[in-house]
Amino acid sequence: MAARQMIIGMHLGNGYGNLPGAWRAPSVDPQSYTSFDAKVRHAQAAERGKLQFLFLPDGPTHVGDLANEPPHFNLDVMVTLAAVARETKRIGLVATGSTTFNEPFNLARQFKALDVMSHGRTGWNAVTSSGEDVAANYGRRLPSSADRYARAHETVQLVQTLWGSWGKDAWVHDQASGRFANAEQVAPVNMSGKFVASRGPLYIPPSEQGQPVLFHAGGSPNALELAGRFASGVIGAAFTIDDARTQRAAFRASAERAGRNPDEIKFFAGLMTTIANSRREGLDRRITLSGRTFTQRASYLGQMLGLRLDPARLDEPLSPEQLAGARPSPGDPRSVQALKIAREGWTLRDVLAHGVIDYHPVIVGPAVHAADHMQEWFEAGAVDGFWVSPDIYEDGVDAFVEGVVPILQARGLFHREYDGATLRHHLGAPTQYGIDPRLAL
Amino acid sequence: MAARQMIIGMHLGNGYGNLPGAWRAPSVDPQSYTSFDAKVRHAQAAERGKLQFLFLPDGPTHVGDLANEPPHFNLDVMVTLAAVARETKRIGLVATGSTTFNEPFNLARQFKALDVMSHGRTGWNAVTSSGEDVAANYGRRLPSSADRYARAHETVQLVQTLWGSWGKDAWVHDQASGRFANAEQVAPVNMSGKFVASRGPLYIPPSEQGQPVLFHAGGSPNALELAGRFASGVIGAAFTIDDARTQRAAFRASAERAGRNPDEIKFFAGLMTTIANSRREGLDRRITLSGRTFTQRASYLGQMLGLRLDPARLDEPLSPEQLAGARPSPGDPRSVQALKIAREGWTLRDVLAHGVIDYHPVIVGPAVHAADHMQEWFEAGAVDGFWVSPDIYEDGVDAFVEGVVPILQARGLFHREYDGATLRHHLGAPTQYGIDPRLAL
Repeated sequence: MAARQMIIGMHLGNGYGNLPGAWRAPSVDPQSYTSFDAKVRHAQAAERGKLQFLFLPDGPTHVGDLANEPPHFNLDVMVTLAAVARETKRIGLVATGSTTFNEPFNLARQFKALDVMSHGRTGWNAVTSSGEDVAANYGRRLPSSADRYARAHETVQLVQTLWGSWGKDAWVHDQASGRFANAEQVAPVNMSGKFVASRGPLYIPPSEQGQPVLFHAGGSPNALELAGRFASGVIGAAFTIDDARTQRAAFRASAERAGRNPDEIKFFAGLMTTIANSRREGLDRRITLSGRTFTQRASYLGQMLGLRLDPARLDEPLSPEQLAGARPSPGDPRSVQALKIAREGWTLRDVLAHGVIDYHPVIVGPAVHAADHMQEWFEAGAVDGFWVSPDIYEDGVDAFVEGVVPILQARGLFHREYDGATLRHHLGAPTQYGIDPRLAL
Repeated sequence: MAARQMIIGMHLGNGYGNLPGAWRAPSVDPQSYTSFDAKVRHAQAAERGKLQFLFLPDGPTHVGDLANEPPHFNLDVMVTLAAVARETKRIGLVATGSTTFNEPFNLARQFKALDVMSHGRTGWNAVTSSGEDVAANYGRRLPSSADRYARAHETVQLVQTLWGSWGKDAWVHDQASGRFANAEQVAPVNMSGKFVASRGPLYIPPSEQGQPVLFHAGGSPNALELAGRFASGVIGAAFTIDDARTQRAAFRASAERAGRNPDEIKFFAGLMTTIANSRREGLDRRITLSGRTFTQRASYLGQMLGLRLDPARLDEPLSPEQLAGARPSPGDPRSVQALKIAREGWTLRDVLAHGVIDYHPVIVGPAVHAADHMQEWFEAGAVDGFWVSPDIYEDGVDAFVEGVVPILQARGLFHREYDGATLRHHLGAPTQYGIDPRLAL
């Protein structure tokens, strides 16, 4: 039997990359934010690397420094993925869609239409919205977390039920007999919950994978429960192997409590990459593009280490006194890694350029370092795979695909070819049409 | 100065065409309902004919005979148009989006994303939903017409305001200076009405036409008022020149009352086509494909003419007694044309095959007949153009493009080339960004 292999997704965000200054790189079209050519190009690059899915985060608002940095998200995830679906063949397409401010019927319709268009490659990252700024775009106040998750449970069940409301074998389309559909297999769902309701049916036949695959993102007890019931994939965030392993185990246990096989839920940790010939070259790339943000980050790093760091002294390493007096914040798992880097003697600027206060572990340097990191986490049982966020899509996807992927393949850790055509196949997710009968009310 | 020329749109519906049996035609892929290849192909055919826009109706439900006929609408209009946008260059893309069951922020985002993707070719047919079956898909009862139109007015204003909330010159994207945006030109809208509200801003820069163009469909006094204020195009329905001229004049007067130039609103009448070498050939095509529906239609035609028509005698012309005793229903403008056809001596089957009880005037026969019809209506001041619904997309678009378009061009009634690249240009609609200042509250 073949050894277990990791599954890799790629973050597809604003068209530039995870570095705030990615849009300024000489190789980058500064209009990539509105360029669907650019997004298709990045998706195709990921597909050349046989990556199993693209992941599009979303959150219809922007909190940031727009004068200097682009918005974080796609103009619209469904419109973007429709373009990508037509211009790729195998890679899965996972879009975030909020259960808080969308109608279930509209979610069901758009995701299943995309699934049909992509020939069974679509996933729905079903999340709850947070932030009063998002709620305000819908003229509302943010509901309580309990209400948001209650609505999410109802919405996911209703959407999946609508997906199954056009019977699996309903569509006959037999020109000779004139029978278009087995109408008796296209039935209303008539579901009504506390928060959402719909009559249905939804008039969309099954895709090649039946219906979209569910993802979830988040680490709260509520997220754990929702993902355990419904998700085939979890978009995770973890800074250490221990943290990832604990999270993965919790999601697996939650799936088991819901009556599922724990292998049905895959945990993906985030990984940010600057692949370069050397660590020095990688650090310089990051400094050139996003060094402007380091002054502010220096004081944040100081808080994390319990030190007063002087943003005016970015070119000096931390002093022996500072290193000795550092008290890494126990509440921030990044602080241990940050102190480790600082102790290697890098200047404050270089320490920051390592991405020590970023949202995920950051690899800066040769491809083999990323491969080593991924292998270590994977073999420790901490993850089923990763979702990778390159510093700059324009060349960072290629750097990952041409540098890291072949190493993982040579080590037997990653497949060499797509051996199936649907996202459900790529994930090893079980067949499902409509709601999971084990979970039906 | 160039003579006024007509504007032509093409209906892009379920992938088959306006004949209920279109899906059974030998040339048709019976899976066109789920085939985006088919929809792209039909759109490209319309673009070869230099048509100014595609029109996608929508109404998230289906009332019909699914055993024998496909659903009427696209799987999802936005997903479909995203594919079409990437694979066409000039033709406008007009999608129907309900103001009744959609969040304004979501509408604003998807339509403007599509407008950016299509480089300024998008139009929004902003309608109110009707039918309890649609409302039930959203777990609601249908609001009163007054409430639906009040919400529509608020929604259109809010959506247009959100479109303008990213200032026209806000996006600098200057790599050298590092200035991404003039953040002070990206402002919240903070609009709050009785039915909808949003804070904004929407983070999408202008398209090549600034923002999508508004369309409306409907003939009620409420529709007249909404279209008069906001619409650049009206998707109309009229059976006679007089009816069309009256409607067009009413929309123009409504625009004038709203402070606009009446030429800013274009009225498009529907036209259904079966283009064939002869009328006989066209009738046979329609009978072969949709003759099954004629039994039911015979009794409907009987009601329309005040006659008892025997569905068992489809192969006989109406008798002299029947023709003499016919009393065409004064409430149904189709009845005059139906009686005229019946008096020509066609069999009952052939009368029905003329499409006399269809939703729009139907041309069955040589291309020149369609061209004559269009010229007559256009020169009578009854329309600014048409939206054409071919019997079968797979060859009916080509038949129109290769047959009717060259005649109209030779007569100087239709342009020979796109002389602009945006829908706003194709329609001659004035520049607008954000809400029309003449209408601002």
